[in-house]
Amino acid sequence: MMKADIGLIGLAVMGENLVMNMESKGFTVAVYNRTTAKVKDFVEGRAKGKNIIGAYSIEELVANLKKPRRVMMMVKAGAAVDALIDTLIPHLEKGDIIIDGGNSHFPDTIRRTQYVESKGLLYIGTGVSGGEEGALKGPSMMPGGSPAAWPHVRDVFQAICAKVEDGSPCCDWVGENGAGHFVKMVHNGIEYGDMQLICEAYQFMRDALQMTPDEMHEVFKAWNESELDSYLIEITRDILAYKDEDGKPIVDKILDTAGQKGTGKWTGIAALDEGVPLTLIGEAVFARCLSAMKDERVAAAKVFPKTIPAFEGDRAAIIEDIRKALYASKIISYAQGYTLMRTAAKTYGWNLNYGGIALMWRGGCIIRSVFLGKIKEAYDKNPQLQNLLLDPYFADTIRGLVPAWRNVVATAVKSGIPMPAFSSALAYFDGYTTEKLPANLLQAQRDYFGAHTYERLDAPRGEFFHTNWTGHGGSTSASTYTA
Amino acid sequence: MMKADIGLIGLAVMGENLVMNMESKGFTVAVYNRTTAKVKDFVEGRAKGKNIIGAYSIEELVANLKKPRRVMMMVKAGAAVDALIDTLIPHLEKGDIIIDGGNSHFPDTIRRTQYVESKGLLYIGTGVSGGEEGALKGPSMMPGGSPAAWPHVRDVFQAICAKVEDGSPCCDWVGENGAGHFVKMVHNGIEYGDMQLICEAYQFMRDALQMTPDEMHEVFKAWNESELDSYLIEITRDILAYKDEDGKPIVDKILDTAGQKGTGKWTGIAALDEGVPLTLIGEAVFARCLSAMKDERVAAAKVFPKTIPAFEGDRAAIIEDIRKALYASKIISYAQGYTLMRTAAKTYGWNLNYGGIALMWRGGCIIRSVFLGKIKEAYDKNPQLQNLLLDPYFADTIRGLVPAWRNVVATAVKSGIPMPAFSSALAYFDGYTTEKLPANLLQAQRDYFGAHTYERLDAPRGEFFHTNWTGHGGSTSASTYTA
Repeated sequence: MMKADIGLIGLAVMGENLVMNMESKGFTVAVYNRTTAKVKDFVEGRAKGKNIIGAYSIEELVANLKKPRRVMMMVKAGAAVDALIDTLIPHLEKGDIIIDGGNSHFPDTIRRTQYVESKGLLYIGTGVSGGEEGALKGPSMMPGGSPAAWPHVRDVFQAICAKVEDGSPCCDWVGENGAGHFVKMVHNGIEYGDMQLICEAYQFMRDALQMTPDEMHEVFKAWNESELDSYLIEITRDILAYKDEDGKPIVDKILDTAGQKGTGKWTGIAALDEGVPLTLIGEAVFARCLSAMKDERVAAAKVFPKTIPAFEGDRAAIIEDIRKALYASKIISYAQGYTLMRTAAKTYGWNLNYGGIALMWRGGCIIRSVFLGKIKEAYDKNPQLQNLLLDPYFADTIRGLVPAWRNVVATAVKSGIPMPAFSSALAYFDGYTTEKLPANLLQAQRDYFGAHTYERLDAPRGEFFHTNWTGHGGSTSASTYTA
Repeated sequence: MMKADIGLIGLAVMGENLVMNMESKGFTVAVYNRTTAKVKDFVEGRAKGKNIIGAYSIEELVANLKKPRRVMMMVKAGAAVDALIDTLIPHLEKGDIIIDGGNSHFPDTIRRTQYVESKGLLYIGTGVSGGEEGALKGPSMMPGGSPAAWPHVRDVFQAICAKVEDGSPCCDWVGENGAGHFVKMVHNGIEYGDMQLICEAYQFMRDALQMTPDEMHEVFKAWNESELDSYLIEITRDILAYKDEDGKPIVDKILDTAGQKGTGKWTGIAALDEGVPLTLIGEAVFARCLSAMKDERVAAAKVFPKTIPAFEGDRAAIIEDIRKALYASKIISYAQGYTLMRTAAKTYGWNLNYGGIALMWRGGCIIRSVFLGKIKEAYDKNPQLQNLLLDPYFADTIRGLVPAWRNVVATAVKSGIPMPAFSSALAYFDGYTTEKLPANLLQAQRDYFGAHTYERLDAPRGEFFHTNWTGHGGSTSASTYTA
């Protein structure tokens, strides 16, 4: 009997779609699901007549695989992954590869890589983005784990993944142990930021310009033919045009309380842990939390009644300014996300390929955009680029966007339109480009109340000074009060 | 021989000062330090002739204590605390109390309370704020842990702590297990926010109004006689007047790179974990991170050269606007911090006394201020107050501050002065008081690419809808893609 090229465990929609995708590229796939009725349904349904082998036990699945065996898990992130790994290990042998294609948290993947390697096997933790449709037609894939596993999974991954116009696959080796899931996590954080930016632009148009969904549809349609060309702008265009059964725009009928599943939160926590100012994504996560406090907001709106003043000025000009401000803010968000990846790479010893990451995100995933091609170019030119803003193309671009950006944020501030992501992006830009921030005063305060000491502009770095501010401080020490 | 009322382990400056404070209030204190030379130095030095008993072993310390024994640890947070607890346990008996007065992370205190109680003992984890001087003269104390322990430590804690004008102690029972250290953590986060707000006000005056430290000294002096009356405004006033040996303002010579010890970060992470929009403290933590990127900022300032336009307008008026904007932003920061405490209290089952917390912070600690008296009043009036902004006094106050706040943030935005804390506070206010945020569009996006479903304005909450946006979605499910 013909053996399968790869095994897949977990036949929810994502898993099934990946199997169909693999099979369509010429791979034979063995499948298993804990509830085995699903296996039967699948092989007798969608998989009928395809090179897909149903297995009704782990043993059967493993027996059906070519060596080195490749087993991909598409199960719920968390304890289920650990349990499945422990179930698989006794059935596998040296050099076999366990692949986790779920949304696992990167510290878990770091731990699991080490664990699986300690058993003589190889491990891959891969981000898979693009939702159900992506899984079927070509997802963005971000694999990390055991470097020795990559040559053995590359053929399948690069066959099934999304491709950009020139045919380059949106999948390449990311790095050791948890690097793939880390990069996927940052992808999701950036997705939170991109969505929040679109929402703020929409709110400005809806509330200050009092535009209808149809009018905004036209705006997003035009934007999608500009530098903003991207999947999220495209679906926003389509959402705004979508009519409910009564012929009215459906977007107006949806409750304004955003859900979340935690990966944006993880990105924010990673940034805090790494000491990287990831302000835009942080605001985007918090904006979802604030939206969820609907009843409280309704009550607060009564206590602080406000009317957004109707915009009086050139409407076409302000809409173009919003587009520019959105683009500028988006550049900041990616600059912050890349800084987080660079910093984490140092912490965890990953050798990340930043241009390659942009290419992986270029197609297949939710944040896919033309813009990512520009990021790839920037990192191809200078793989050690410290900050995206310092790349000549982006520096020039940002310079051209700044006046519009300031105008939009200032108008929102004066009108009472909340634009936390636009404004935090601008504050970051203004802070990042300021040689002298006010932290000298902050260091003086810390030295005053906690004897934390400070460095001086007129002394070498690393030399620390303490001032006896009150004249009665005496022998204070920096080690005793932490703030 | 006379037995001691309390034992204290760890004779760094904070520990020594707490001992001196306790002794001055009539308590006899037994002291021990792992490096016993410190015990000798102390009892022959500062402690000479006082009711302070030096112990050179744990056994000796414990033997010198009245029952139930009270042993306070003032050692480095982390593993040292766990080790010391394990050392102490065999020497103690049922009903004895172990107290941790360090800056422990609240999950550790939750775990330790359970552990120590499982051994038949009682546990207190208490925040102690006020630095070295506070420890000596009266700190703010925030005790949590085993409720049964509180009646036994109350006398000492309320004797040594700071007092407000009417004599009320800045120490009261906070709540079960980790509640005390949680509240101390939020205190530190708020401290980050308060300091950042002062720094942004200072930067506006320094860079846009081109004021000298002496001029700004006068401003902070006046502000300290307004609603902003607080320790941090007071020391800022004094710092700005402080001259270096050459007679020039020392603040101008300090390097603008802020340090941090992690408690602000913990607060941000707790907020992300709880889903509470704690935007101002988040920005304050990130602002410290950005300040630390000094070399990168210097390089970026060359790529994006800018000149802050000199302010042309009524200088006295804009300074008063800055004061109002600072006050408004500060109210937001405390509103956010209190929301975090309310939410965490639900998560962890704490019965927090919100007015009492304001009173504990009212004196002794770094964030002490007249303003906290107003917060206490608000929670005394309505212990279930959902948000500080909804208290009639604060609602009225904020309404009066809004025009100045918008003016300052808009001016900063247009001038290129980074004010991340001021502007994130305003964006939060504008979001919190907006009945309809743009999250309806965000939910449509999530349903579009991930079939996450949404609620509708015209249907009951809890009823979820999915739209087949593309017309070719088929049987999608919300459980398979997480973003």
